[in-house]
Amino acid sequence: MYMMHEKRPLVSVVSPSPRLLEQVKDATVALDSFGIKSETRIVAAHRSPHKTIRFVAECHARGIEVIIATGEGSAHLPGMIASLTTIPVIGVPLKGDTLHGGMDSFLSIAQMPRGVPVGTMGINAAYNAGVFACQILALKYPDLQEKLKRYKEMMEEQVESEDTKQSKVIS
Amino acid sequence: MYMMHEKRPLVSVVSPSPRLLEQVKDATVALDSFGIKSETRIVAAHRSPHKTIRFVAECHARGIEVIIATGEGSAHLPGMIASLTTIPVIGVPLKGDTLHGGMDSFLSIAQMPRGVPVGTMGINAAYNAGVFACQILALKYPDLQEKLKRYKEMMEEQVESEDTKQSKVIS
Amino acid sequence: MYMMHEKRPLVSVVSPSPRLLEQVKDATVALDSFGIKSETRIVAAHRSPHKTIRFVAECHARGIEVIIATGEGSAHLPGMIASLTTIPVIGVPLKGDTLHGGMDSFLSIAQMPRGVPVGTMGINAAYNAGVFACQILALKYPDLQEKLKRYKEMMEEQVESEDTKQSKVIS
Amino acid sequence: MYMMHEKRPLVSVVSPSPRLLEQVKDATVALDSFGIKSETRIVAAHRSPHKTIRFVAECHARGIEVIIATGEGSAHLPGMIASLTTIPVIGVPLKGDTLHGGMDSFLSIAQMPRGVPVGTMGINAAYNAGVFACQILALKYPDLQEKLKRYKEMMEEQVESEDTKQSKVIS
Amino acid sequence: MYMMHEKRPLVSVVSPSPRLLEQVKDATVALDSFGIKSETRIVAAHRSPHKTIRFVAECHARGIEVIIATGEGSAHLPGMIASLTTIPVIGVPLKGDTLHGGMDSFLSIAQMPRGVPVGTMGINAAYNAGVFACQILALKYPDLQEKLKRYKEMMEEQVESEDTKQSKVIS
Amino acid sequence: MYMMHEKRPLVSVVSPSPRLLEQVKDATVALDSFGIKSETRIVAAHRSPHKTIRFVAECHARGIEVIIATGEGSAHLPGMIASLTTIPVIGVPLKGDTLHGGMDSFLSIAQMPRGVPVGTMGINAAYNAGVFACQILALKYPDLQEKLKRYKEMMEEQVESEDTKQSKVIS
Amino acid sequence: MYMMHEKRPLVSVVSPSPRLLEQVKDATVALDSFGIKSETRIVAAHRSPHKTIRFVAECHARGIEVIIATGEGSAHLPGMIASLTTIPVIGVPLKGDTLHGGMDSFLSIAQMPRGVPVGTMGINAAYNAGVFACQILALKYPDLQEKLKRYKEMMEEQVESEDTKQSKVIS
Amino acid sequence: MYMMHEKRPLVSVVSPSPRLLEQVKDATVALDSFGIKSETRIVAAHRSPHKTIRFVAECHARGIEVIIATGEGSAHLPGMIASLTTIPVIGVPLKGDTLHGGMDSFLSIAQMPRGVPVGTMGINAAYNAGVFACQILALKYPDLQEKLKRYKEMMEEQVESEDTKQSKVIS
Repeated sequence: MYMMHEKRPLVSVVSPSPRLLEQVKDATVALDSFGIKSETRIVAAHRSPHKTIRFVAECHARGIEVIIATGEGSAHLPGMIASLTTIPVIGVPLKGDTLHGGMDSFLSIAQMPRGVPVGTMGINAAYNAGVFACQILALKYPDLQEKLKRYKEMMEEQVESEDTKQSKVIS
Repeated sequence: MYMMHEKRPLVSVVSPSPRLLEQVKDATVALDSFGIKSETRIVAAHRSPHKTIRFVAECHARGIEVIIATGEGSAHLPGMIASLTTIPVIGVPLKGDTLHGGMDSFLSIAQMPRGVPVGTMGINAAYNAGVFACQILALKYPDLQEKLKRYKEMMEEQVESEDTKQSKVIS
Repeated sequence: MYMMHEKRPLVSVVSPSPRLLEQVKDATVALDSFGIKSETRIVAAHRSPHKTIRFVAECHARGIEVIIATGEGSAHLPGMIASLTTIPVIGVPLKGDTLHGGMDSFLSIAQMPRGVPVGTMGINAAYNAGVFACQILALKYPDLQEKLKRYKEMMEEQVESEDTKQSKVIS
Repeated sequence: MYMMHEKRPLVSVVSPSPRLLEQVKDATVALDSFGIKSETRIVAAHRSPHKTIRFVAECHARGIEVIIATGEGSAHLPGMIASLTTIPVIGVPLKGDTLHGGMDSFLSIAQMPRGVPVGTMGINAAYNAGVFACQILALKYPDLQEKLKRYKEMMEEQVESEDTKQSKVIS
Repeated sequence: MYMMHEKRPLVSVVSPSPRLLEQVKDATVALDSFGIKSETRIVAAHRSPHKTIRFVAECHARGIEVIIATGEGSAHLPGMIASLTTIPVIGVPLKGDTLHGGMDSFLSIAQMPRGVPVGTMGINAAYNAGVFACQILALKYPDLQEKLKRYKEMMEEQVESEDTKQSKVIS
Repeated sequence: MYMMHEKRPLVSVVSPSPRLLEQVKDATVALDSFGIKSETRIVAAHRSPHKTIRFVAECHARGIEVIIATGEGSAHLPGMIASLTTIPVIGVPLKGDTLHGGMDSFLSIAQMPRGVPVGTMGINAAYNAGVFACQILALKYPDLQEKLKRYKEMMEEQVESEDTKQSKVIS
Repeated sequence: MYMMHEKRPLVSVVSPSPRLLEQVKDATVALDSFGIKSETRIVAAHRSPHKTIRFVAECHARGIEVIIATGEGSAHLPGMIASLTTIPVIGVPLKGDTLHGGMDSFLSIAQMPRGVPVGTMGINAAYNAGVFACQILALKYPDLQEKLKRYKEMMEEQVESEDTKQSKVIS
Repeated sequence: MYMMHEKRPLVSVVSPSPRLLEQVKDATVALDSFGIKSETRIVAAHRSPHKTIRFVAECHARGIEVIIATGEGSAHLPGMIASLTTIPVIGVPLKGDTLHGGMDSFLSIAQMPRGVPVGTMGINAAYNAGVFACQILALKYPDLQEKLKRYKEMMEEQVESEDTKQSKVIS
């Protein structure tokens, strides 16, 4: 069981530049809501290839169990981390200023070669990366399973309540 | 004949979240203009799959004859409703913040498998969903046929009037 | 009730050239399977604009209740028919030899202006156009409703049987 | 020779709604700059199919020699006019609110079937439609040829002057 | 009037390599069918920029009245010719082996800057380039007008005949 | 530790039709190579919505720990399964016959709404789904971790050997 | 060795209009940071084809060693310059107002025919064009090699510092 | 001056798998035709990240002056090499089996972040990578400049000869 009072982060949320931190904050919000400790890191595949290698090695040493990595444009960070580790990597493509609202990072993160997968989320879907990390960790930490079930029930109740407020016959 | 003083809605306009209500309001505007009663509902295929099933069953019980369903991104709502009913489902893809101005929801709604069609409108074209629902209902309720004819004549007259105002030789 | 022994077709399946007939044949297959009489016609919005107008007028006179129209490339036929009638028009975009495997006809058929909807199917999805026509007609002809329900049950049973054949634990 | 003092417009600039007039104004600006008389008209292929037919017939009667037609989304107007006339039709796709910044109208206008061409301009390129109309008319009216030559020289001079202002070595 | 027994070609059909000749042959087929003399040339904007300039100058000297230019990929030929002349240039984008079935050449040919238009046809639509050239030339040579009218009537008759052969009630 | 001699499958590989089985076989190949038991199932979100719900409930009961789901076109299966369970769902978009070589299923699977993630693989990348499932399971079953490390080393050795065979100076 | 006190520019940064200067300024910023002299020029392939030829000839005469050329839409400038010279041409596609946020210029610049390459940067990536020019020049001027190494080290240090500031465990 | 009898390769042509060698062979063909020695290597960014780092270090040690790198799908190889070196990297996106005929590798290679450029060629344009490498090397080795000039003249002569063979008036 994953102890809520532990200090060790289980998930590393990695971004290639401080400018993109705002867009991945939601991953941490989701992880927090399930009581999962995480760290937020700046590692850039292209600007700091050597740091990328050190970072991944340290993830293993420090017991990181899931890595959430983001990027825009060429967005090689999730794929390069995945090439260096057996830890599951969840990729969050970010919408940049050009080209299809994120199609470039989307394709670059998802279209990985045989043998080196990245579990890709929707564009800008950092929150879902946090939820998916929780679903993965719940296999090992059963108390998270309970929280996920309550989360699903809560969503269903929320829609019910939204619908009740909304429902009206328009003549 | 469809009685104008009836209380029963014929069309259910379904949206996966309150945030999207504004974008489908035009469906109700169109239905209202033809005197067709409708209801506006919140049902989310992904957040509330069980409610989706109950909702569709109730549509049959309550005599709903056309369902207009919307969504952005993966936009499974129209397709999942269509999988659960023989009532014609009209899909309205909504433009989200990322990816081609709505191409994702457009493809997700329209590219349905053999046997389970969704009649897809243009992106954000909720008004047309209302008109199309009216065209479908007019097969059964002939008084709607009259209204549709007048609507078409009115459009033609409107263009004529717009052209008259506009027409001028520029030298 | 729609009499099965009637000769009058309820649906017109319209194609802009004989070359495309093979691709829309499935609409007729679907309609036949529900016992709905249809006709197959060649009408070309661009090559024969005047015939298009006469064809639509005759559809009204002959009691056609749903029109299924196809096209590739610019694919104006469904939209032009929709501009000329209040009969519901179902559009089937066809994949041509160039450009995105049908994206051109898909956009051209679906992105109709306010007031003139076309219920668009997936690309090459002529079969679904037949099913959707049946769902529309079933509002007026309740015996079709029964057939659609059996069709849905049959699909569910077919998947069940496919799964039974397939299911096996692979060690 | 085309008489500058003539009242008869040679070019009809056609738009499917008053809302789009601003986007095609540049066609008239270009035509004016070459001294070519034009008219600005509202004709909607989908909202007013019958008016479209009358409009094209009147173009022939009134001696219109080039038609510039615009549209967004499905954008059938240029193609439908082209189906009804032997007058050269220049199409100007307009960028709408959804889908690729105009890709839908672009494809719909350009991908015409065999035998019915539309000379398509770039997206929102109404000014170029005016220049292209002038190039077409110059075959018949040689005085326009002179103006076009001066226009080309003027562009070359303008670039020369822009470059002179700009050129500087940055150390 | 354009004399049918004249030897002088009115249209130059230009292709950047012998490999692409097959794909533009249809332009000549269309021109031939209207009795318009044309020439087929190989001029490559990128491989032979100086020849491109000489070719365009000679077009003026030899009385060429319309230029049809093709290309795949970057497809600069139509645009570069248009930059060098006031003769109307019709562009035919060709589908290459990569990228969207021709989207690259399509965008490259059509998205010309202000002041330098190319009348773009659909992808691989060389035949339509021939028809469009004829429509342009018909403004100056009225006998072509007659031929175009007969061509339109012939298309309408052909559709009528195709429909007659096809029309049949199924079931 | 996951016992290699156990009969219980840990992963369910789900496909919406027998026709697509060939395209997901590679997921099983990958799982087999790591000694992970899996099952291959046919469940169709649209043709068999009720079976989909039963299937997911049984997955929980039978101790399935990862679900790999595929689809082409609208491809709602991975998303609908994800809506019904807290088990991690890995989605494999399949290339269909139309539209961008799989862009429709790719977008439909990945662009999931807030709260309901699907870990999306590249198009047709069923093998990677198997590897990713193994990476997820390795958090709980440490012996898989060893196998994954050997797998990574083997890939690196394979490239080394390929390079040795290939390396040659070309003069 | 390239003398820092020399006046002769080594790189010409060419833009087709003053309006686009702002978007390519970053190329000069990058070149300046490496101490490479450059010039900023206005040359338009379409508006000033003759000036384009003169400009390229003068580049050879003046000892320009790399040309950075930009463009939006059809963006023929980089390709036309490349057709006229053996100097390496780096192309910077610019995002225009329509069509995919720059996809048109991107394809037009990159998809050059056999024998006439343009080294294409990402969309709006003028800064990278300056860095790439420096990498090319560093083959000849070894002092630039030193600067590039320091630049790479500086990037790695910058990421390290960004990460240090950012790193924190979130509980 | 680059000695033709030297054994040392100046260019390394790198491919992520033997399967793709056929598609990059043309780079070597081009380099050979200019008398430039090259080597062909297999290095995979994802399958062999550590080898990638060693390979780049050895390139520096062995005096490689230009690197041509290829890839399909996510295609991180050119970008990862560029992150590790100051040697100019030319990227050749390859068309894979899915997604837009190469759009994924095209975007992934070209859309690099600030500071780490890759000079991207057209899709499958390995031959042009060889020519571009030669243009870069010609700055340092003036004898290559002569060869490039002859190559350009040869292209212009080839077009002239193709045109002469082709030119004929078709009546």
